[in-house]
Amino acid sequence: MQPNSRHVYFLSNGTAITAETLGMSLLAQFPDHAFQTHTVPFVDTLEKAHAFADEINRCRDASGHLPIVICTMGDDDLIKVIEHCKALVIDPFGDILPRLEKVLATQHHQPGESHRTVNPSLYESRIDAIDYAMQHDDGGKTQNYDEADIILVGVSRSGKTPSCLYLALQFGIKAANYPITEEDMDSDRLPQPIAPFKKQLFGLTTDLQRLVNIREERRPNSRYASTNQCRFELRAVEEMYLRHNIPYINTSKMSVEEISARIIRDNGLHRVDLI
Amino acid sequence: MQPNSRHVYFLSNGTAITAETLGMSLLAQFPDHAFQTHTVPFVDTLEKAHAFADEINRCRDASGHLPIVICTMGDDDLIKVIEHCKALVIDPFGDILPRLEKVLATQHHQPGESHRTVNPSLYESRIDAIDYAMQHDDGGKTQNYDEADIILVGVSRSGKTPSCLYLALQFGIKAANYPITEEDMDSDRLPQPIAPFKKQLFGLTTDLQRLVNIREERRPNSRYASTNQCRFELRAVEEMYLRHNIPYINTSKMSVEEISARIIRDNGLHRVDLI
Repeated sequence: MQPNSRHVYFLSNGTAITAETLGMSLLAQFPDHAFQTHTVPFVDTLEKAHAFADEINRCRDASGHLPIVICTMGDDDLIKVIEHCKALVIDPFGDILPRLEKVLATQHHQPGESHRTVNPSLYESRIDAIDYAMQHDDGGKTQNYDEADIILVGVSRSGKTPSCLYLALQFGIKAANYPITEEDMDSDRLPQPIAPFKKQLFGLTTDLQRLVNIREERRPNSRYASTNQCRFELRAVEEMYLRHNIPYINTSKMSVEEISARIIRDNGLHRVDLI
Repeated sequence: MQPNSRHVYFLSNGTAITAETLGMSLLAQFPDHAFQTHTVPFVDTLEKAHAFADEINRCRDASGHLPIVICTMGDDDLIKVIEHCKALVIDPFGDILPRLEKVLATQHHQPGESHRTVNPSLYESRIDAIDYAMQHDDGGKTQNYDEADIILVGVSRSGKTPSCLYLALQFGIKAANYPITEEDMDSDRLPQPIAPFKKQLFGLTTDLQRLVNIREERRPNSRYASTNQCRFELRAVEEMYLRHNIPYINTSKMSVEEISARIIRDNGLHRVDLI
Protein backbone atom coordinates (compact mmCIF):
# COMPACT_ATOMS: atom_id res chain seq x y z
CA MET A 1 0.00 0.00 0.00
CA GLN A 2 1.30 3.43 -0.94
CA PRO A 3 1.57 5.96 1.91
CA ASN A 4 -1.06 8.39 0.67
CA SER A 5 -3.45 5.94 -0.93
CA ARG A 6 -7.10 6.66 -0.32
CA HIS A 7 -9.29 3.94 1.17
CA VAL A 8 -12.30 3.11 -0.97
CA TYR A 9 -15.05 0.67 0.10
CA PHE A 10 -17.48 -1.05 -2.24
CA LEU A 11 -20.43 -1.95 -0.05
CA SER A 12 -23.66 -3.84 -0.58
CA ASN A 13 -26.20 -6.08 1.08
CA GLY A 14 -25.68 -8.41 -1.91
CA THR A 15 -22.58 -9.49 -3.79
CA ALA A 16 -21.31 -5.89 -4.14
CA ILE A 17 -20.53 -6.57 -7.81
CA THR A 18 -22.48 -3.50 -8.89
CA ALA A 19 -20.80 -1.22 -6.34
CA GLU A 20 -17.39 -2.59 -7.30
CA THR A 21 -17.91 -2.38 -11.06
CA LEU A 22 -19.19 1.19 -10.89
CA GLY A 23 -16.56 2.13 -8.33
CA MET A 24 -13.64 0.79 -10.33
CA SER A 25 -14.81 2.68 -13.42
CA LEU A 26 -15.02 5.88 -11.38
CA LEU A 27 -11.58 5.42 -9.82
CA ALA A 28 -10.10 4.78 -13.27
CA GLN A 29 -10.89 8.42 -14.04
CA PHE A 30 -8.22 9.37 -11.49
CA PRO A 31 -5.17 7.49 -12.78
CA ASP A 32 -2.68 9.61 -10.83
CA HIS A 33 -4.23 8.73 -7.49
CA ALA A 34 -3.39 5.66 -5.41
CA PHE A 35 -6.35 3.78 -3.99
CA GLN A 36 -6.66 0.96 -1.51
CA THR A 37 -9.92 -0.80 -2.38
CA HIS A 38 -12.05 -3.05 -0.16
CA THR A 39 -15.07 -5.00 -1.35
CA VAL A 40 -17.58 -5.63 1.43
CA PRO A 41 -20.49 -7.84 0.36
CA PHE A 42 -23.51 -9.17 2.29
CA VAL A 43 -23.90 -6.30 4.76
CA ASP A 44 -27.55 -7.18 5.16
CA THR A 45 -28.42 -6.48 8.80
CA LEU A 46 -28.37 -3.36 10.95
CA GLU A 47 -25.77 -5.02 13.14
CA LYS A 48 -23.42 -5.57 10.20
CA ALA A 49 -24.04 -2.02 8.97
CA HIS A 50 -23.10 -0.59 12.37
CA ALA A 51 -19.98 -2.75 12.51
CA PHE A 52 -19.00 -1.49 9.07
CA ALA A 53 -19.63 2.12 10.13
CA ASP A 54 -17.31 1.63 13.09
CA GLU A 55 -14.62 0.27 10.77
CA ILE A 56 -14.98 3.29 8.47
CA ASN A 57 -14.69 5.72 11.34
CA ARG A 58 -11.55 4.00 12.61
CA CYS A 59 -10.14 4.11 9.07
CA ARG A 60 -10.85 7.87 8.91
CA ASP A 61 -9.05 8.48 12.16
CA ALA A 62 -6.09 6.22 11.40
CA SER A 63 -5.46 7.35 7.82
CA GLY A 64 -6.18 11.04 8.27
CA HIS A 65 -8.16 10.97 5.00
CA LEU A 66 -11.87 10.81 4.38
CA PRO A 67 -12.60 7.29 3.09
CA ILE A 68 -14.85 6.89 0.05
CA VAL A 69 -17.80 4.48 0.31
CA ILE A 70 -19.64 3.48 -2.84
CA CYS A 71 -22.71 1.53 -1.82
CA THR A 72 -25.56 -0.06 -3.67
CA MET A 73 -28.14 -1.30 -1.24
CA GLY A 74 -31.83 -1.02 -1.84
CA ASP A 75 -32.59 -0.98 1.89
CA ASP A 76 -33.23 2.49 3.32
CA ASP A 77 -32.57 1.52 6.95
CA LEU A 78 -29.12 0.18 6.11
CA ILE A 79 -28.26 3.21 3.99
CA LYS A 80 -29.14 5.53 6.88
CA VAL A 81 -26.54 3.88 9.08
CA ILE A 82 -23.87 4.20 6.40
CA GLU A 83 -24.71 7.83 5.64
CA HIS A 84 -23.64 8.80 9.12
CA CYS A 85 -20.10 7.49 8.64
CA LYS A 86 -17.14 9.82 8.51
CA ALA A 87 -16.79 9.23 4.77
CA LEU A 88 -17.79 10.45 1.35
CA VAL A 89 -20.79 8.15 0.87
CA ILE A 90 -21.89 7.67 -2.72
CA ASP A 91 -25.28 6.01 -3.11
CA PRO A 92 -26.15 5.83 -6.82
CA PHE A 93 -29.42 3.99 -6.12
CA GLY A 94 -30.58 6.83 -3.88
CA ASP A 95 -29.88 9.34 -6.63
CA ILE A 96 -31.28 7.38 -9.55
CA LEU A 97 -34.25 5.35 -8.25
CA PRO A 98 -36.53 8.37 -7.72
CA ARG A 99 -35.99 9.39 -11.35
CA LEU A 100 -36.86 5.90 -12.57
CA GLU A 101 -39.91 5.78 -10.29
CA LYS A 102 -41.19 8.97 -11.86
CA VAL A 103 -40.81 7.75 -15.44
CA LEU A 104 -42.19 4.30 -14.67
CA ALA A 105 -44.94 5.78 -12.49
CA THR A 106 -44.36 3.21 -9.78
CA GLN A 107 -42.41 2.70 -6.57
CA HIS A 108 -39.33 0.53 -6.51
CA HIS A 109 -39.80 -2.76 -4.86
CA GLN A 110 -37.25 -5.01 -3.38
CA PRO A 111 -34.10 -4.33 -1.49
CA GLY A 112 -31.08 -6.13 -2.78
CA GLU A 113 -29.29 -6.72 -6.01
CA SER A 114 -30.17 -8.52 -9.17
CA HIS A 115 -27.36 -10.97 -8.43
CA ARG A 116 -29.15 -12.17 -5.33
CA THR A 117 -31.82 -14.07 -7.19
CA VAL A 118 -31.35 -16.89 -9.63
CA ASN A 119 -33.14 -16.84 -12.95
CA PRO A 120 -33.43 -20.59 -13.71
CA SER A 121 -33.40 -20.23 -17.51
CA LEU A 122 -30.36 -17.95 -17.37
CA TYR A 123 -28.68 -20.44 -15.08
CA GLU A 124 -29.39 -23.31 -17.48
CA SER A 125 -28.11 -21.37 -20.49
CA ARG A 126 -24.95 -20.44 -18.66
CA ILE A 127 -24.30 -23.98 -17.54
CA ASP A 128 -24.89 -25.35 -21.04
CA ALA A 129 -22.57 -22.73 -22.50
CA ILE A 130 -19.87 -23.44 -19.91
CA ASP A 131 -20.12 -27.20 -20.56
CA TYR A 132 -19.80 -26.46 -24.26
CA ALA A 133 -16.79 -24.15 -23.86
CA MET A 134 -14.99 -26.66 -21.61
CA GLN A 135 -15.54 -29.54 -24.03
CA HIS A 136 -14.62 -27.53 -27.10
CA ASP A 137 -11.58 -25.75 -25.72
CA ASP A 138 -8.29 -25.78 -27.61
CA GLY A 139 -9.62 -28.07 -30.35
CA GLY A 140 -10.25 -30.74 -27.71
CA LYS A 141 -13.50 -31.86 -29.23
CA THR A 142 -14.26 -30.86 -32.79
CA GLN A 143 -17.68 -32.43 -33.14
CA ASN A 144 -20.78 -30.29 -32.65
CA TYR A 145 -19.20 -27.18 -34.14
CA ASP A 146 -22.55 -26.68 -35.84
CA GLU A 147 -23.94 -25.84 -32.39
CA ALA A 148 -21.34 -23.13 -31.76
CA ASP A 149 -22.43 -19.50 -31.71
CA ILE A 150 -18.81 -18.62 -32.46
CA ILE A 151 -15.54 -20.50 -33.05
CA LEU A 152 -12.45 -18.51 -32.10
CA VAL A 153 -9.25 -19.32 -33.97
CA GLY A 154 -5.69 -18.13 -33.44
CA VAL A 155 -2.17 -19.15 -32.50
CA SER A 156 -1.36 -20.51 -29.05
CA ARG A 157 -1.65 -17.79 -26.38
CA SER A 158 -3.59 -15.25 -28.37
CA GLY A 159 -6.45 -15.15 -25.82
CA LYS A 160 -8.88 -17.76 -27.13
CA THR A 161 -9.64 -19.69 -23.93
CA PRO A 162 -10.31 -16.75 -21.57
CA SER A 163 -12.54 -15.15 -24.20
CA CYS A 164 -14.58 -18.33 -24.71
CA LEU A 165 -15.04 -18.82 -20.97
CA TYR A 166 -16.04 -15.21 -20.46
CA LEU A 167 -18.59 -15.37 -23.30
CA ALA A 168 -20.07 -18.52 -21.78
CA LEU A 169 -20.15 -17.36 -18.16
CA GLN A 170 -21.38 -13.81 -18.70
CA PHE A 171 -23.60 -14.17 -21.72
CA GLY A 172 -24.52 -17.84 -22.13
CA ILE A 173 -22.85 -17.84 -25.56
CA LYS A 174 -21.59 -21.19 -26.88
CA ALA A 175 -18.02 -20.49 -27.89
CA ALA A 176 -15.55 -23.09 -29.15
CA ASN A 177 -11.91 -22.44 -29.91
CA TYR A 178 -9.48 -24.07 -32.28
CA PRO A 179 -5.73 -23.48 -32.20
CA ILE A 180 -3.98 -22.83 -35.51
CA THR A 181 -0.75 -24.84 -35.39
CA GLU A 182 2.32 -24.95 -37.58
CA GLU A 183 0.98 -27.88 -39.57
CA ASP A 184 -2.15 -25.90 -40.43
CA MET A 185 0.04 -23.11 -41.76
CA ASP A 186 1.61 -25.24 -44.49
CA SER A 187 -1.62 -25.37 -46.42
CA ASP A 188 -3.63 -22.76 -48.29
CA ARG A 189 -6.77 -24.46 -47.06
CA LEU A 190 -8.51 -24.04 -43.76
CA PRO A 191 -7.84 -26.84 -41.26
CA GLN A 192 -10.25 -29.67 -41.93
CA PRO A 193 -12.24 -29.55 -38.62
CA ILE A 194 -13.16 -25.88 -39.01
CA ALA A 195 -13.45 -25.63 -42.82
CA PRO A 196 -17.21 -26.39 -42.94
CA PHE A 197 -18.00 -23.70 -40.34
CA LYS A 198 -16.54 -20.63 -41.98
CA LYS A 199 -19.44 -18.38 -40.99
CA GLN A 200 -18.85 -19.00 -37.29
CA LEU A 201 -15.08 -18.40 -37.40
CA PHE A 202 -13.55 -15.36 -35.76
CA GLY A 203 -9.81 -14.77 -35.61
CA LEU A 204 -7.63 -13.41 -32.84
CA THR A 205 -4.18 -12.02 -33.37
CA THR A 206 -1.75 -10.09 -31.21
CA ASP A 207 1.40 -7.96 -31.37
CA LEU A 208 4.69 -9.81 -31.82
CA GLN A 209 6.36 -8.60 -28.63
CA ARG A 210 3.31 -9.34 -26.51
CA LEU A 211 3.12 -12.91 -27.80
CA VAL A 212 6.83 -13.41 -27.19
CA ASN A 213 6.46 -12.13 -23.61
CA ILE A 214 3.45 -14.31 -22.80
CA ARG A 215 5.04 -17.44 -24.26
CA GLU A 216 8.36 -16.69 -22.58
CA GLU A 217 6.55 -16.72 -19.21
CA ARG A 218 5.36 -20.25 -19.94
CA ARG A 219 8.36 -21.80 -21.71
CA PRO A 220 11.46 -19.65 -21.20
CA ASN A 221 14.15 -19.86 -23.90
CA SER A 222 12.08 -22.21 -26.04
CA ARG A 223 11.71 -22.20 -29.82
CA TYR A 224 7.97 -21.79 -29.07
CA ALA A 225 8.65 -18.41 -27.42
CA SER A 226 11.34 -17.21 -29.84
CA THR A 227 10.80 -14.00 -31.78
CA ASN A 228 11.30 -15.78 -35.10
CA GLN A 229 8.74 -18.47 -34.37
CA CYS A 230 6.16 -16.02 -33.04
CA ARG A 231 6.66 -13.74 -36.07
CA PHE A 232 6.23 -16.67 -38.46
CA GLU A 233 3.04 -17.86 -36.77
CA LEU A 234 1.42 -14.42 -36.55
CA ARG A 235 2.15 -13.69 -40.23
CA ALA A 236 0.83 -17.05 -41.32
CA VAL A 237 -2.36 -16.78 -39.29
CA GLU A 238 -3.11 -13.23 -40.43
CA GLU A 239 -2.60 -14.32 -44.04
CA MET A 240 -5.03 -17.17 -43.40
CA TYR A 241 -7.66 -14.72 -42.08
CA LEU A 242 -7.28 -12.48 -45.13
CA ARG A 243 -7.25 -15.34 -47.66
CA HIS A 244 -10.46 -16.86 -46.27
CA ASN A 245 -12.19 -13.62 -45.33
CA ILE A 246 -12.27 -14.46 -41.64
CA PRO A 247 -12.93 -11.33 -39.54
CA TYR A 248 -10.33 -10.80 -36.83
CA ILE A 249 -9.12 -8.45 -34.13
CA ASN A 250 -5.78 -7.68 -32.53
CA THR A 251 -6.18 -8.35 -28.80
CA SER A 252 -2.86 -6.90 -27.63
CA LYS A 253 -4.26 -3.90 -25.82
CA MET A 254 -7.59 -5.43 -24.88
CA SER A 255 -8.93 -6.92 -21.68
CA VAL A 256 -10.93 -10.12 -21.82
CA GLU A 257 -14.04 -7.98 -21.30
CA GLU A 258 -13.26 -5.83 -24.31
CA ILE A 259 -12.40 -8.78 -26.55
CA SER A 260 -15.73 -10.38 -25.63
CA ALA A 261 -17.74 -7.18 -26.13
CA ARG A 262 -16.21 -6.72 -29.59
CA ILE A 263 -16.86 -10.33 -30.59
CA ILE A 264 -20.52 -9.96 -29.60
CA ARG A 265 -20.90 -6.68 -31.47
CA ASP A 266 -18.97 -7.65 -34.60
CA ASN A 267 -20.83 -10.92 -34.96
CA GLY A 268 -24.25 -9.72 -33.85
CA LEU A 269 -24.35 -12.55 -31.32
CA HIS A 270 -27.50 -13.16 -29.36
CA ARG A 271 -26.88 -12.89 -25.64
CA VAL A 272 -29.01 -14.54 -23.03
CA ASP A 273 -31.58 -12.06 -21.72
CA LEU A 274 -30.58 -11.15 -18.23
CA ILE A 275 -34.10 -10.20 -17.12
CA MET B 1 -41.10 -8.85 -26.26
CA GLN B 2 -44.07 -7.95 -24.09
CA PRO B 3 -46.38 -5.27 -25.50
CA ASN B 4 -45.75 -2.62 -22.87
CA SER B 5 -42.15 -3.35 -22.11
CA ARG B 6 -39.96 -0.31 -21.68
CA HIS B 7 -36.83 0.04 -23.81
CA VAL B 8 -33.66 0.48 -21.77
CA TYR B 9 -30.26 1.19 -23.33
CA PHE B 10 -26.91 0.59 -21.62
CA LEU B 11 -24.51 2.90 -23.42
CA SER B 12 -20.79 3.54 -23.25
CA ASN B 13 -17.75 4.51 -25.27
CA GLY B 14 -16.12 1.38 -23.79
CA THR B 15 -17.43 -2.13 -23.16
CA ALA B 16 -20.63 -0.85 -21.46
CA ILE B 17 -20.11 -3.41 -18.70
CA THR B 18 -20.43 -0.73 -16.03
CA ALA B 19 -23.59 0.75 -17.52
CA GLU B 20 -25.11 -2.70 -17.91
CA THR B 21 -24.19 -3.91 -14.42
CA LEU B 22 -25.53 -0.80 -12.74
CA GLY B 23 -28.55 -0.72 -15.03
CA MET B 24 -29.54 -4.33 -14.40
CA SER B 25 -29.32 -3.77 -10.63
CA LEU B 26 -31.56 -0.74 -10.95
CA LEU B 27 -34.13 -2.51 -13.12
CA ALA B 28 -34.21 -5.41 -10.65
CA GLN B 29 -35.81 -2.96 -8.21
CA PHE B 30 -38.88 -2.91 -10.48
CA PRO B 31 -39.74 -6.62 -10.72
CA ASP B 32 -43.30 -5.99 -11.90
CA HIS B 33 -42.17 -4.07 -14.97
CA ALA B 34 -41.21 -5.61 -18.31
CA PHE B 35 -38.03 -4.25 -19.89
CA GLN B 36 -36.43 -4.71 -23.26
CA THR B 37 -32.71 -4.11 -22.72
CA HIS B 38 -30.07 -3.18 -25.30
CA THR B 39 -26.35 -3.01 -24.61
CA VAL B 40 -24.56 -0.56 -26.89
CA PRO B 41 -20.77 -0.55 -26.43
CA PHE B 42 -18.00 1.40 -28.18
CA VAL B 43 -19.98 4.55 -28.99
CA ASP B 44 -16.74 6.50 -29.09
CA THR B 45 -17.16 9.14 -31.81
CA LEU B 46 -19.57 12.03 -32.29
CA GLU B 47 -20.83 10.31 -35.43
CA LYS B 48 -21.75 7.16 -33.51
CA ALA B 49 -23.33 9.23 -30.74
CA HIS B 50 -25.54 11.05 -33.24
CA ALA B 51 -26.53 7.77 -34.89
CA PHE B 52 -27.47 6.39 -31.48
CA ALA B 53 -29.47 9.53 -30.67
CA ASP B 54 -31.43 9.07 -33.89
CA GLU B 55 -32.17 5.46 -32.94
CA ILE B 56 -33.43 6.54 -29.52
CA ASN B 57 -35.68 9.17 -30.99
CA ARG B 58 -37.16 6.65 -33.42
CA CYS B 59 -37.69 4.25 -30.51
CA ARG B 60 -39.51 6.98 -28.57
CA ASP B 61 -41.84 7.68 -31.44
CA ALA B 62 -42.47 4.04 -32.33
CA SER B 63 -43.05 2.74 -28.79
CA GLY B 64 -44.92 5.73 -27.40
CA HIS B 65 -42.84 5.44 -24.22
CA LEU B 66 -39.85 7.44 -23.08
CA PRO B 67 -36.83 5.11 -23.40
CA ILE B 68 -34.35 4.93 -20.54
CA VAL B 69 -30.65 5.42 -21.33
CA ILE B 70 -28.07 4.55 -18.70
CA CYS B 71 -24.72 5.73 -19.93
CA THR B 72 -21.23 5.74 -18.53
CA MET B 73 -18.94 7.70 -20.75
CA GLY B 74 -16.23 9.96 -19.44
CA ASP B 75 -16.34 12.13 -22.56
CA ASP B 76 -18.30 15.36 -22.15
CA ASP B 77 -18.82 15.96 -25.86
CA LEU B 78 -20.41 12.55 -26.34
CA ILE B 79 -22.62 12.95 -23.28
CA LYS B 80 -23.94 16.25 -24.60
CA VAL B 81 -25.23 14.55 -27.74
CA ILE B 82 -26.97 11.86 -25.72
CA GLU B 83 -28.51 14.32 -23.26
CA HIS B 84 -30.55 15.81 -26.08
CA CYS B 85 -32.27 12.50 -26.88
CA LYS B 86 -35.95 12.02 -26.24
CA ALA B 87 -35.21 9.75 -23.28
CA LEU B 88 -34.63 9.62 -19.56
CA VAL B 89 -30.84 9.87 -19.65
CA ILE B 90 -29.08 8.67 -16.52
CA ASP B 91 -25.40 9.61 -16.34
CA PRO B 92 -24.00 8.41 -13.01
CA PHE B 93 -20.48 9.63 -13.87
CA GLY B 94 -21.80 13.14 -14.36
CA ASP B 95 -23.45 13.05 -10.95
CA ILE B 96 -20.63 11.42 -9.02
CA LEU B 97 -17.34 12.61 -10.55
CA PRO B 98 -17.64 16.20 -9.25
CA ARG B 99 -18.05 14.87 -5.71
CA LEU B 100 -14.98 12.68 -6.06
CA GLU B 101 -13.00 15.57 -7.57
CA LYS B 102 -13.79 17.68 -4.54
CA VAL B 103 -12.68 15.07 -2.01
CA LEU B 104 -9.58 14.12 -4.00
CA ALA B 105 -8.84 17.78 -4.75
CA THR B 106 -8.11 17.01 -8.39
CA GLN B 107 -9.78 16.88 -11.78
CA HIS B 108 -10.76 13.61 -13.33
CA HIS B 109 -8.60 12.58 -16.18
CA GLN B 110 -9.38 10.21 -18.93
CA PRO B 111 -12.48 9.49 -20.88
CA GLY B 112 -13.37 5.85 -21.08
CA GLU B 113 -13.74 2.92 -18.81
CA SER B 114 -11.36 0.97 -16.67
CA HIS B 115 -12.03 -2.04 -18.89
CA ARG B 116 -10.46 -0.27 -21.82
CA THR B 117 -6.92 -0.55 -20.55
CA VAL B 118 -5.06 -3.72 -19.78
CA ASN B 119 -3.17 -4.05 -16.55
CA PRO B 120 -0.42 -6.55 -17.50
CA SER B 121 -0.01 -8.04 -14.02
CA LEU B 122 -3.78 -8.49 -13.66
CA TYR B 123 -3.83 -10.11 -17.09
CA GLU B 124 -1.05 -12.51 -16.12
CA SER B 125 -2.74 -13.46 -12.85
CA ARG B 126 -6.01 -14.09 -14.60
CA ILE B 127 -4.41 -16.21 -17.28
CA ASP B 128 -2.48 -18.25 -14.73
CA ALA B 129 -5.63 -18.76 -12.67
CA ILE B 130 -7.65 -19.77 -15.75
CA ASP B 131 -4.95 -22.25 -16.81
CA TYR B 132 -5.00 -23.65 -13.29
CA ALA B 133 -8.79 -23.96 -13.14
CA MET B 134 -8.93 -25.66 -16.54
CA GLN B 135 -6.24 -28.19 -15.61
CA HIS B 136 -7.69 -28.91 -12.17
CA ASP B 137 -11.33 -29.12 -13.13
CA ASP B 138 -13.42 -32.10 -12.08
CA GLY B 139 -10.50 -33.89 -10.46
CA GLY B 140 -8.77 -33.96 -13.87
CA LYS B 141 -5.35 -33.26 -12.45
CA THR B 142 -4.80 -33.74 -8.73
CA GLN B 143 -1.18 -32.69 -8.55
CA ASN B 144 -0.32 -29.13 -7.47
CA TYR B 145 -3.23 -28.88 -5.03
CA ASP B 146 -0.76 -27.17 -2.73
CA GLU B 147 -0.87 -24.22 -5.15
CA ALA B 148 -4.65 -23.93 -4.95
CA ASP B 149 -6.18 -20.94 -3.17
CA ILE B 150 -9.30 -23.05 -2.76
CA ILE B 151 -10.45 -26.58 -3.66
CA LEU B 152 -14.19 -26.90 -4.16
CA VAL B 153 -15.73 -30.29 -3.44
CA GLY B 154 -19.25 -31.59 -4.00
CA VAL B 155 -21.38 -34.07 -5.92
CA SER B 156 -21.73 -33.90 -9.68
CA ARG B 157 -23.72 -30.80 -10.76
CA SER B 158 -23.54 -28.87 -7.53
CA GLY B 159 -21.94 -25.83 -9.22
CA LYS B 160 -18.22 -26.49 -8.81
CA THR B 161 -16.98 -25.78 -12.35
CA PRO B 162 -18.78 -22.47 -12.98
CA SER B 163 -17.67 -21.21 -9.57
CA CYS B 164 -14.02 -22.12 -10.19
CA LEU B 165 -14.03 -20.45 -13.61
CA TYR B 166 -15.69 -17.34 -12.25
CA LEU B 167 -13.18 -17.08 -9.38
CA ALA B 168 -10.33 -17.41 -11.87
CA LEU B 169 -11.65 -15.02 -14.51
CA GLN B 170 -12.92 -12.26 -12.24
CA PHE B 171 -10.49 -12.41 -9.38
CA GLY B 172 -7.38 -14.31 -10.48
CA ILE B 173 -8.01 -16.89 -7.76
CA LYS B 174 -6.57 -20.37 -8.31
CA ALA B 175 -9.51 -22.69 -7.74
CA ALA B 176 -9.46 -26.46 -8.23
CA ASN B 177 -12.46 -28.73 -7.92
CA TYR B 178 -12.81 -32.35 -7.00
CA PRO B 179 -16.01 -34.37 -7.47
CA ILE B 180 -17.15 -36.56 -4.59
CA THR B 181 -18.28 -39.84 -6.15
CA GLU B 182 -20.13 -42.85 -4.81
CA GLU B 183 -16.88 -44.69 -4.16
CA ASP B 184 -15.66 -41.84 -1.97
CA MET B 185 -18.86 -42.09 0.06
CA ASP B 186 -18.17 -45.65 1.21
CA SER B 187 -15.33 -44.53 3.42
CA ASP B 188 -15.17 -42.45 6.59
CA ARG B 189 -11.97 -40.92 5.30
CA LEU B 190 -11.53 -38.08 2.89
CA PRO B 191 -10.66 -39.12 -0.66
CA GLN B 192 -6.93 -39.64 -0.91
CA PRO B 193 -6.11 -36.82 -3.40
CA ILE B 194 -7.72 -34.11 -1.25
CA ALA B 195 -7.00 -35.47 2.24
CA PRO B 196 -3.67 -33.60 2.67
CA PHE B 197 -5.25 -30.26 1.73
CA LYS B 198 -8.03 -30.00 4.29
CA LYS B 199 -7.49 -26.31 4.93
CA GLN B 200 -8.19 -25.41 1.30
CA LEU B 201 -11.35 -27.52 1.01
CA PHE B 202 -14.74 -25.87 0.67
CA GLY B 203 -17.95 -27.84 0.14
CA LEU B 204 -20.93 -27.13 -2.08
CA THR B 205 -24.30 -28.72 -1.60
CA THR B 206 -27.74 -28.11 -3.07
CA ASP B 207 -31.43 -28.88 -2.53
CA LEU B 208 -32.62 -32.32 -3.54
CA GLN B 209 -35.20 -31.21 -6.09
CA ARG B 210 -32.83 -28.78 -7.74
CA LEU B 211 -30.15 -31.46 -8.16
CA VAL B 212 -32.72 -33.88 -9.59
CA ASN B 213 -33.89 -31.25 -12.08
CA ILE B 214 -30.40 -30.33 -13.24
CA ARG B 215 -29.32 -33.95 -13.63
CA GLU B 216 -32.58 -34.86 -15.36
CA GLU B 217 -31.80 -32.20 -18.00
CA ARG B 218 -28.52 -33.98 -18.73
CA ARG B 219 -29.42 -37.65 -18.41
CA PRO B 220 -33.20 -38.08 -18.45
CA ASN B 221 -34.62 -41.13 -16.64
CA SER B 222 -31.21 -42.24 -15.43
CA ARG B 223 -30.24 -43.68 -12.06
CA TYR B 224 -27.86 -40.67 -11.86
CA ALA B 225 -30.82 -38.27 -11.93
CA SER B 226 -33.17 -40.32 -9.73
CA THR B 227 -34.49 -38.84 -6.51
CA ASN B 228 -33.13 -41.75 -4.48
CA GLN B 229 -29.63 -41.47 -5.87
CA CYS B 230 -29.51 -37.68 -5.48
CA ARG B 231 -30.81 -37.94 -1.90
CA PHE B 232 -28.20 -40.56 -1.04
CA GLU B 233 -25.35 -38.51 -2.50
CA LEU B 234 -26.38 -35.23 -0.87
CA ARG B 235 -26.73 -36.88 2.55
CA ALA B 236 -23.40 -38.61 2.24
CA VAL B 237 -21.56 -35.49 1.14
CA GLU B 238 -23.08 -33.32 3.87
CA GLU B 239 -22.12 -35.94 6.46
CA MET B 240 -18.60 -35.86 5.05
CA TYR B 241 -18.44 -32.06 5.43
CA LEU B 242 -19.62 -32.27 9.05
CA ARG B 243 -17.37 -35.19 9.99
CA HIS B 244 -14.26 -33.48 8.66
CA ASN B 245 -15.19 -29.90 9.58
CA ILE B 246 -15.24 -28.75 5.98
CA PRO B 247 -17.12 -25.45 5.66
CA TYR B 248 -19.89 -25.56 3.06
CA ILE B 249 -22.78 -23.65 1.54
CA ASN B 250 -26.05 -24.62 -0.12
CA THR B 251 -25.97 -23.12 -3.62
CA SER B 252 -29.60 -23.80 -4.60
CA LYS B 253 -30.79 -20.22 -4.57
CA MET B 254 -27.49 -18.61 -5.49
CA SER B 255 -26.11 -17.26 -8.74
CA VAL B 256 -22.52 -18.05 -9.70
CA GLU B 257 -21.67 -14.48 -8.65
CA GLU B 258 -23.10 -14.99 -5.18
CA ILE B 259 -21.46 -18.38 -4.68
CA SER B 260 -18.11 -16.84 -5.62
CA ALA B 261 -18.57 -13.77 -3.40
CA ARG B 262 -19.40 -16.02 -0.43
CA ILE B 263 -16.42 -18.30 -1.04
CA ILE B 264 -14.11 -15.28 -1.11
CA ARG B 265 -15.58 -13.81 2.05
CA ASP B 266 -15.86 -17.06 4.04
CA ASN B 267 -12.29 -18.06 3.22
CA GLY B 268 -10.71 -14.62 3.38
CA LEU B 269 -9.27 -15.20 -0.09
CA HIS B 270 -6.87 -12.67 -1.53
CA ARG B 271 -8.15 -11.25 -4.77
CA VAL B 272 -5.96 -9.76 -7.42
CA ASP B 273 -5.88 -5.98 -7.01
CA LEU B 274 -7.82 -4.50 -9.87
CA ILE B 275 -5.97 -1.17 -9.82
